Amino acid sequence: MGKQLTSREEDYSKWYNELVIKADLAEHSAVRGCMVIKPHGYGIWEKIQRQLDDMFKETGHVNAYFPLLIPKKLFEAEEKNAEGFAKECAVVTHYRLKTDPSDKTKLIVDPDAKLEEELIIRPTSEAIIWNTYRNWIQSYRDLPILINQWANVMRWEMRTRLFLRTAEFLWQEGHTAHATKQEAVDESRQMLEVYATFAEEYMAMPVIKGVKSPSERFAGADDTYSIEALMQDGKALQAGTSHFLGQNFAKAFDVKYVNKEGKQEYVWATSWGVSTRLMGALIMTHSDDDGLIIPPKLAPIQVVIVPIYKGEEQLNELSEAVRPIMDELKASGISVKYDDSDNRKPGWKFAEYELKGIPLRIAIGPRDLANGTVEIARRDTKEKELVTLENVRSHVIQRLEDIHNNLFARAKKLQEDKTSSVDDYEEFKKVLKEKGGFIFAHWDGTEETEERIKKETKATIRNIPFEGDMTEGKCMVTGKPSARKVLFALAY
Amino acid sequence: MGKQLTSREEDYSKWYNELVIKADLAEHSAVRGCMVIKPHGYGIWEKIQRQLDDMFKETGHVNAYFPLLIPKKLFEAEEKNAEGFAKECAVVTHYRLKTDPSDKTKLIVDPDAKLEEELIIRPTSEAIIWNTYRNWIQSYRDLPILINQWANVMRWEMRTRLFLRTAEFLWQEGHTAHATKQEAVDESRQMLEVYATFAEEYMAMPVIKGVKSPSERFAGADDTYSIEALMQDGKALQAGTSHFLGQNFAKAFDVKYVNKEGKQEYVWATSWGVSTRLMGALIMTHSDDDGLIIPPKLAPIQVVIVPIYKGEEQLNELSEAVRPIMDELKASGISVKYDDSDNRKPGWKFAEYELKGIPLRIAIGPRDLANGTVEIARRDTKEKELVTLENVRSHVIQRLEDIHNNLFARAKKLQEDKTSSVDDYEEFKKVLKEKGGFIFAHWDGTEETEERIKKETKATIRNIPFEGDMTEGKCMVTGKPSARKVLFALAY
Repeated sequence: MGKQLTSREEDYSKWYNELVIKADLAEHSAVRGCMVIKPHGYGIWEKIQRQLDDMFKETGHVNAYFPLLIPKKLFEAEEKNAEGFAKECAVVTHYRLKTDPSDKTKLIVDPDAKLEEELIIRPTSEAIIWNTYRNWIQSYRDLPILINQWANVMRWEMRTRLFLRTAEFLWQEGHTAHATKQEAVDESRQMLEVYATFAEEYMAMPVIKGVKSPSERFAGADDTYSIEALMQDGKALQAGTSHFLGQNFAKAFDVKYVNKEGKQEYVWATSWGVSTRLMGALIMTHSDDDGLIIPPKLAPIQVVIVPIYKGEEQLNELSEAVRPIMDELKASGISVKYDDSDNRKPGWKFAEYELKGIPLRIAIGPRDLANGTVEIARRDTKEKELVTLENVRSHVIQRLEDIHNNLFARAKKLQEDKTSSVDDYEEFKKVLKEKGGFIFAHWDGTEETEERIKKETKATIRNIPFEGDMTEGKCMVTGKPSARKVLFALAY
Repeated sequence: MGKQLTSREEDYSKWYNELVIKADLAEHSAVRGCMVIKPHGYGIWEKIQRQLDDMFKETGHVNAYFPLLIPKKLFEAEEKNAEGFAKECAVVTHYRLKTDPSDKTKLIVDPDAKLEEELIIRPTSEAIIWNTYRNWIQSYRDLPILINQWANVMRWEMRTRLFLRTAEFLWQEGHTAHATKQEAVDESRQMLEVYATFAEEYMAMPVIKGVKSPSERFAGADDTYSIEALMQDGKALQAGTSHFLGQNFAKAFDVKYVNKEGKQEYVWATSWGVSTRLMGALIMTHSDDDGLIIPPKLAPIQVVIVPIYKGEEQLNELSEAVRPIMDELKASGISVKYDDSDNRKPGWKFAEYELKGIPLRIAIGPRDLANGTVEIARRDTKEKELVTLENVRSHVIQRLEDIHNNLFARAKKLQEDKTSSVDDYEEFKKVLKEKGGFIFAHWDGTEETEERIKKETKATIRNIPFEGDMTEGKCMVTGKPSARKVLFALAY
């Protein structure tokens, strides 16, 4: 069973699919479009969760849990939201199976156990949550509500891809309620900042923050903000969204509060989420033809130590030398694994940990022991260094930081190299075809033009960035006035 | 809105239901039998999760994630398991809604989107997991597999109660695969020990470990081990189970491995789980007529500080004195909240934090400030002590430990007081009726006798304890030989 991957140049999509499987991150399950997240993949997701959760709590949020199933009637209440998700809902219609009378080894759906009202598996939880908030909110004293939920959701996608688009996925969804519009807008912007900080400082993935065009808004939102990242193949990936929901859900579910002046008002809302899709972004931002590269801060194992030995006696000597290194690294909060398993050769292990993206590998053999050194190899650059035993700790700390910085710089450079600014539609098409990447161009602000560009080129407006070139101009397609250039790309 | 609870003596069941609602732990949702876990309740669950997760990892387990939905055909494969859960399965039959042609504001299930094969929402994941393991296991080198999953599951219960029995609940389920029977038995016993340690050392809840009688086994298991706790009202609660599954799932899903001798063998299995039911156990082990009492190691907030002040100036002075205390406590890993909100009086706050079970409350007013002291009140005993500012940290650390020990001792004493040993069936019925609690009695080991006792008294065999009186005797009902007394009780 060779572990070699198709090269990225040969077929980027194939490389991705192979990498996810071969690096033991995830696999397809027996259920159409649903994945199994394997321990190595889940370990990275746990690090993502833990870090984001800390950041949510630092910004005043608490976690809670709302039901998986949503009664159809509740789901209908916010019309746009319902319309946006109705076509991809898994529907529960019965609550019991029974033995098949014609074959006792089989089960059939019990027709007597039909639900009076169908339940849908949550594609997102605004409906059930706002129906609940109605009872929690009476006065301004009950606001704001700052709640997050870690959960599984289901959207019955027709074409699925591991991590990037699956019927079931894991995510977090924040749902907040506020007394004023400004507070809700500020909240949705704040959470976008949290996502951007997480993307850059933990995933080492540069992102562009901005607001979505109206046609790309979340169903039920007044405004959707996004962070957009650029993958190695020049396609964009929406890595997180934060929605200012206005009073849409408050009105749909009749959620009012009495303000300080004793007047009843509708509550203002936000929601925001990131999902296991981030795993796809992480993979396609950093990895290479030899496998995964995990940014150090999200690596479940940051350092692996491989002894190179013949016979048990040598192994014992090496293990004794390794023990204080392990202790020292663990005491510094570094996660380290010692792989002294005897059913694989060191060369096999080296390739395996490279494939799995472990940031640093330490090799130690009898000659190292005699010299009081170890060999430390970086996953990102493949550079190897001899380090004396007493310097291992400080070297590892430094190199983990270096790797993070190098990964970010590499990704940033790629993003810059693949970012263009064009003024003409023909040029736009040419750049899109030949180079791909992010393309800044003027747009007249209409849905028709946006739709036409999408139809003719498959490129979409990723967002209207908060920062960057704010010069006015003329729409590249219609020549009508444009307030500023917006960000286009082909996207995942 | 009074927060006063029905007393436990008056109506224990009512007290429980009110407490869960009034202490903001959970509430009923719009979906029959499904609960909303509110932030305060979820905060405790997060502490439970974090601690158990650490213990699972220390014993070599890793986390992964398997699909929510299970194809009916897979679910049928292990007959007993299927039979055991078929009657309470939520079934997904369609994957799309569409606009109701007769009313554009409504959605209906799209009959064209009927699934070829129905999917059930997992009531437990053995089926989907063992179907997956088949592809992961070829040789002894691939074993053991030591995986845990944190997930939501659904069992369509007809009579539900918050935390104790809900259609959807949160849990962890470990699923391990082993080369030998002994290794699997050891694993299932080890995980029961982990649960018992957690119950006693973190929940401050004494438990009795043992093996279930065959009729009470998990559907599909060769042996089920359990920890049983005794609630204040004298009823038992099964707080965790660990199953030795033999080769049942390996045979149902054809999971074989090649052993060191090159021979194909079926794999041995275990599974083990605890759920949000533990929240119910926690509540009914410790709480009192004034509200919840949270064991300190699982309290999201361990210490609350309430300033007693008039006017902003006094508040500022107090806040300044409180800041170093907060810093000191946080630096010692203690979670502390400073409640200087101005819309509630101190008395209201005291009652509220009592109701919510915060282990320690620190009150500080101007007179305290002048004397250089604070008042520290314990939730468990209601005792108050004056403590000098410089001693707050050491006092808090000591008292948190004292509270844990006191809660455990109290619960242990209650368990002992409510444990009886009887030799005669009439006496058994009398004790059960008048005193309740755990009752040790001889049983002839047959399902008929067990069933008769259950029918006549509602008492069930909780388990056959690993420890305790091992003397032989005669069954209290039939007079037939009994190897030892077993543990009976009325149970949740």
